[in-house]
Order: sequence, then C-alpha cells, then structure tokens
Amino acid sequence: MTITELLVALLAIFAAAKLFGELARRIGQPAVLGEMVGGIVIGVSGLHLIDAHSSLIHVLSELGVLLLLFLIGLDTDIHRLLAVGRASAAVAVAGVLLPFATGYGVGALFALPTTISVFLGASLTATSVAITARVLSDLGQLKSDESQVILGAAVIDDILGLVLLTLVSAMAAGRKITMIGAGRTFGIAFGFVAVAIAAGTILAPRLIALTTRLRITRALFFTSIMFAFALAYLADLAGSAVIIGAFAAGLALARTDRARDIEREVYPIAQFFIPIFFVSVGAAVDLKQLNPFNPASRQFLVIGLLLALAAIAGKLVAGFTAFAGRPLRRIVIGVGMIPRGEVGLIFAQLGLTAGLLSAGLYSSVALMVMVTTFVAPPLLRVMLTPETPDEASTLSDVVTETMSDVAEKEIAEELRQ
Amino acid sequence: MTITELLVALLAIFAAAKLFGELARRIGQPAVLGEMVGGIVIGVSGLHLIDAHSSLIHVLSELGVLLLLFLIGLDTDIHRLLAVGRASAAVAVAGVLLPFATGYGVGALFALPTTISVFLGASLTATSVAITARVLSDLGQLKSDESQVILGAAVIDDILGLVLLTLVSAMAAGRKITMIGAGRTFGIAFGFVAVAIAAGTILAPRLIALTTRLRITRALFFTSIMFAFALAYLADLAGSAVIIGAFAAGLALARTDRARDIEREVYPIAQFFIPIFFVSVGAAVDLKQLNPFNPASRQFLVIGLLLALAAIAGKLVAGFTAFAGRPLRRIVIGVGMIPRGEVGLIFAQLGLTAGLLSAGLYSSVALMVMVTTFVAPPLLRVMLTPETPDEASTLSDVVTETMSDVAEKEIAEELRQ
Repeated sequence: MTITELLVALLAIFAAAKLFGELARRIGQPAVLGEMVGGIVIGVSGLHLIDAHSSLIHVLSELGVLLLLFLIGLDTDIHRLLAVGRASAAVAVAGVLLPFATGYGVGALFALPTTISVFLGASLTATSVAITARVLSDLGQLKSDESQVILGAAVIDDILGLVLLTLVSAMAAGRKITMIGAGRTFGIAFGFVAVAIAAGTILAPRLIALTTRLRITRALFFTSIMFAFALAYLADLAGSAVIIGAFAAGLALARTDRARDIEREVYPIAQFFIPIFFVSVGAAVDLKQLNPFNPASRQFLVIGLLLALAAIAGKLVAGFTAFAGRPLRRIVIGVGMIPRGEVGLIFAQLGLTAGLLSAGLYSSVALMVMVTTFVAPPLLRVMLTPETPDEASTLSDVVTETMSDVAEKEIAEELRQ
Repeated sequence: MTITELLVALLAIFAAAKLFGELARRIGQPAVLGEMVGGIVIGVSGLHLIDAHSSLIHVLSELGVLLLLFLIGLDTDIHRLLAVGRASAAVAVAGVLLPFATGYGVGALFALPTTISVFLGASLTATSVAITARVLSDLGQLKSDESQVILGAAVIDDILGLVLLTLVSAMAAGRKITMIGAGRTFGIAFGFVAVAIAAGTILAPRLIALTTRLRITRALFFTSIMFAFALAYLADLAGSAVIIGAFAAGLALARTDRARDIEREVYPIAQFFIPIFFVSVGAAVDLKQLNPFNPASRQFLVIGLLLALAAIAGKLVAGFTAFAGRPLRRIVIGVGMIPRGEVGLIFAQLGLTAGLLSAGLYSSVALMVMVTTFVAPPLLRVMLTPETPDEASTLSDVVTETMSDVAEKEIAEELRQ
C-alpha cells in the first residue's frame, strides 16, 4: 500500500466516522453506531472506498482497539472490578457456554458437519469488549456497577473465546485436542493476566518516576504507550491477545498518581486510531451475500438471523446469573454483553481461510456480528436514559472527549457570542 | 504484517528514538541526529529489529514526514517566505544544477554508463526539507531570515527534484524525453503549489468556521488533518509530492485565526509518527556494503564519499547565490541545504528496482545521504550557538515541544521540590 492509498483510506474513514457519528448524536444515539453505519456506506456494500481486508488498515484498526482497551484499563478501578468479580465470572462462563450450545444447535439444525457447527458456536462466545465499552462510555455510564460487571465479564469471555480459538484452530488443522493441551492453553491465558497485573503494578510507579528525570519531549506519553505495547506483545507471546495485555497495562498504570495525566496524553493518538476500527467493522459487511430475493443467499440470511437470535438469547440469559452483594439491573448486564465483534470476525476469517466456512456462511457470521452490534446501543440508550440526561451523554463520555476539546468548545462558544 | 510485528517495530523505533535523542541532547546536539543514530543501531547494520523496507513502516514514516511538513507550513508566514523568495529561488536552482553536474562527473570519472551517471547526479539534487527543518527547529531557529531562505529553497528544489525524477524514470523505462513533456511536468508541479495555496487560502477560513457548528469531538483536529491529507493526495494526483501538498495545506491554515489551536491539536499525533521517519532513515543504512577492508566494497565507499563531497560542495556554493534586501549569513544557508534524505533515497531505490544501480552503488547513494545528513546538524549547531543558549534549544523547539509538555515539565518540577 502506498502513502496515497493510505491517505484516501484515512480520508474516507474519518469523513464517514465524523459525518455519521455526528448524525447518530443528533438523533440521540451513541457515536459508535454512526461510525459503523459510516463503515457500511464506504465499505464493500457501498462505495468501495476502503478495503477492510487491506492488511495496513487492518493493523491500524487493531492498534485502535489496543489503545481503546489501554484507556479503558487506565480508567478502571481494579478494586471495584474485583468487588464484582464473582458476578463477572458467572456472566462470562454462562455467556460462553449458552451461545456456544445454541450456535452449535443452529449448525446441527441445517445438518452442517460437526466441525463447522463447532466453528459457528465458537464465533458466538466472545462479547466485543471494545464495542460495549465504547457504547457505555458514549452514554457516560462506564463507572456504574452494571458496567463494571459487563467489563469484567467481557474481558474474561474474551480470554475464554481466545482459548476456544486456539482449540478450534487445532481442530481445523486436523490435529487432536487433548485435555492436557486444552488445560494448558487455559492456564496460560488466565495466568498471564494475573502475572501482568501483579508485575505491572510493581513496575509502573518506578517507570513513571523515571520519566521525570528525562529531558526528552513527552517522556510520560512515550513511556506509557511503550509499556502498553510491551505488555500487549508479551500477552500475544503468552498465547493471550494483545488487547488483554493493553488492558492489563492500563490497569497497572491506573494505580499510579499520574493516571489522569497519562490519559490526557494518550487521548489524542487514540482518537486518531479508534475510528479506524469501528469504521472497518462496518466496511467488512457484505450486504449482497445476504440478499433475501436471491434463493442462493436466502439460506445464509436465515442462518445469520438464527445465529443472531442465539447470540442475543444466550447473553441475555447469562446476564441473569449475575449476583453481587448489591442490587444489579441484570437485564442491563445481559444487553450490555450482546455485541460481538473482533473475536467473532476472527473466528469467521479463520474458518474462511481454512476452507471450512463458505463465503455464504462467513456472511452469516458477519450478519450475526452486525445485528448484535446494532441492537445493543439503542437498547442500552433506552434503558439507561433516566440516568443520563442529554448533556451528560455529550460532555461526559470518557473515552471520546479530551480536555483540549472542552477548551475548544468553550472557545467556540465565546466566538459565537 | 501483523499487529505483534508492528508492536515490536514501534517499540524498537520509539526506544531507539528516545534513548539516542536523549543522549544527543545531553551532548548538545539536535535530537534528530540521535534518532538517526538510533536507527542505525536497530536497523540492517545493527540489531535488525526493524526492516526499513517493510511497506507498513515505510508508509507510516511517510505519514510522519507529511505531518512534519504540515506543521512547518502551519508555522510559516507566507509573506516572509515570499519576501526572501528571490533568494530561495536562486539557491534552489543553483543547488540543483551544481550537485547534478558534479554528481554526473563522479559517475563519468568511474567510467559508468551515462544513464547511471545521470541517476547519481539526480540523486544529489534535492535537500531534505524534513531533516533541515527538524534541525532548525531543534535549534530554535525556524523563524530566522536564513531559515526562511533555506525552507523556501528546500521546497523549490524538492519540486525540481521530483520533476527530474519523473524525467529520469521515463529514461530508465527506455522512453524518449521530449522538451514539451519536460516543460509540462515542470509547469504542473509549480502550478499545483500556486493553485493549492490560492484555493486553500480561500477555503481554509470557511472550513474552520464550519467546525464550530459541529457536535463531534475534536472537530478542529479532524477538519485540519483531513484538509492536509486531501491537499497531499491532490498534489500526488497532479504529479507533485504528498509532502508539498501537506506544506501548502499548512501555509493556507497558517493564515486563519485558529492556527495556534490547530498546531496544538496536531502536535501529539505528529510526535507519534515523526520519529518513525527519522529512525527509518538510519535503519536503511547498510554499513556492510561500505566495508573499507573488503576490496569488493571499497570502490563503493570511495564513490559514496566523492558523491558526498560533490553534494556538500554543490550546496555550499549554491548558498552564496542568496541575495535579499537584507544581510544574510550565506554560509549558514549553504550548510542548511546540505542534508539529503527521502528524495535521494527514492532515486536510489528506483534505480535499484529498475536494475540500473547495483547493491553497491545503492549503498554509495545511501552513504552520501548519511554523510550529508550527519554533517549538517553539528555544523549548524556550532554556527548558530551564539544566538541559541542551551535553554532555548531545549524549550523553544517549535516542532518537538507541545503545550502539554511544558505543563508536564512544570508538574515534574513541582514533584521534585
């Protein structure tokens, strides 16, 4: 890819993200919903302005998710997360088992081979922590008890989903899966998070203290993102996912006394990369594969809708397993767990590459991702309205708003007067 | 390239840039010199941590140069640039003709074919506006009359260099070059800059006014960089270079009343991408190809050093053609024009791809780029010392310092007390 191709792609992505994000806000929806619709408009189903399969755009969008998870970790109080830890774990485990079973059932219903049904079931397991966190933050709700349960469960089921992915990949490659191998994968994935948080918490304050002695520009910024990149890389090495490493880095730095400064420093760069991810999610959707008037694609539309139903029902029921020492609105938790995203799409792409999923079944999974992602934001918006007046949803969203923005708005206000 | 490969590359780049940048500052040299040394250490001549030929790193480094030129344009007063325009034009034309002739001469001296000699001569023509501007800004000298002449001349000879590139590429492809074709290329390149500045100046204030009516986050930031990306893309379409378009966008926005706000908004993202470029320049240098103890590579070392001498002498003499209505330190201008960079390397890569330059001759050109780039910063540092006390060089560098940095330092100071 050349620099001019990158410029065209970025122009299309930012224009779509900001135009449709603005429209979403004006009709009272979270900006992230607009960004995904913008992606559909400029992607394979619309103007073909960007190719979501381009490896450059893909890697930049992954950097966006990584920075988003880092910021979310930075904004998370680990004590509050652990306080609702039992509820999160229950929601996560139920939220992996139920959708896996129902998804497998959809495959069996259409008499698909077992391996393919396992693939379909597995692709329903992991909530997209990126999409969910972004919606909650767009609604100014990231600090509520329900949000903490959702966040914890989404991180845990992301790890569970990745364990499943490792096992299913081995299956796709024709290898035997042993109980010991499965247990090992499982232990490594959870062990990494525990070790990363423990080691990171010891290391982080020393690292931050070091930055005050450096003469280089923006020492705090570079130290923080390098810490996040390093843990992300180590997470991948350990068989976990880069986003889990970035989240752990954020959690560790959240406990230092410079957490707010780091947040302020990392925002601008995160705001550059994050829309690339959400627009890409929309851009990858190929509506043509799901045309109901074409007999060849009608079957995949039906499978996709059934998968979506299975995905929604599974997480809603899982939400009701949440018990904590305090009252929780468990329906909110269930709805918050609905969006599937990156992990589901990774499953689908792996299946497509391995020759297990046809282009049609790939689109069915993409439809499931799309439906679950589009259904949750308006539902959450309705359920959370009483507590979030309009002003709050515009001014308090933690992830998308910066200090300099607030200053900018004040200046703009002054100019208008 | 996967996300983990990108993370490793970025970790290596930022670590090298910040570590060696810090060292350079401590011995009183511009940070950019340290960043390039850091590149050599982690590149093909050292630890092999990054592959400068990776298309992803290459494209991100180009985005860095583009943002650097945008910021420089944003910080440039077009009236002052035009006031020294005649001097700039003279330095640019002499600074293209003299190095081209001497470079051709070096090829002829070694009895190389005419086409190859033309290639070598052409690769000496364009001053690296990115390197020069960064050095001047690291030294806090971007606003002096001499700097304005250098900046103007560097932009003009970049355009001249790109015209030459178009002609030489046609030659390499075996096509005939007509006077009409050459004139057309020349007219388009300069015409674009004039039109872009004129149209941009009319458009920019309207665009900025629009941002105050938007509800999206960081409207000013996204409007500005999209304006820069759009002009960069149009410049490429018109046969000029993306960096020329970005510079023109900066010049146009510099005349709006929000120029300082835009600068503050774009800094953080620019500081992320700019080091990628300077580290890449160092990383591409293969010292092995120039081993003096190996008879096979000794010849290329000699050619490279002669090319470097030709490159330095040509620009020094060109500096003396600078006449303006006021006194100018013309030796400073000559020295400021010495660094070659991206355009020289583009010539070399094109020659290598076309099969005209051997790996040895490619390294000769790379050596010339390296010598010219490393020679200028310390020389400028010595010549400009009387006017730049140490504090100024650390605190006033316009491109590498941000408002939030200053705030950060103040906080750090407070913590230390």
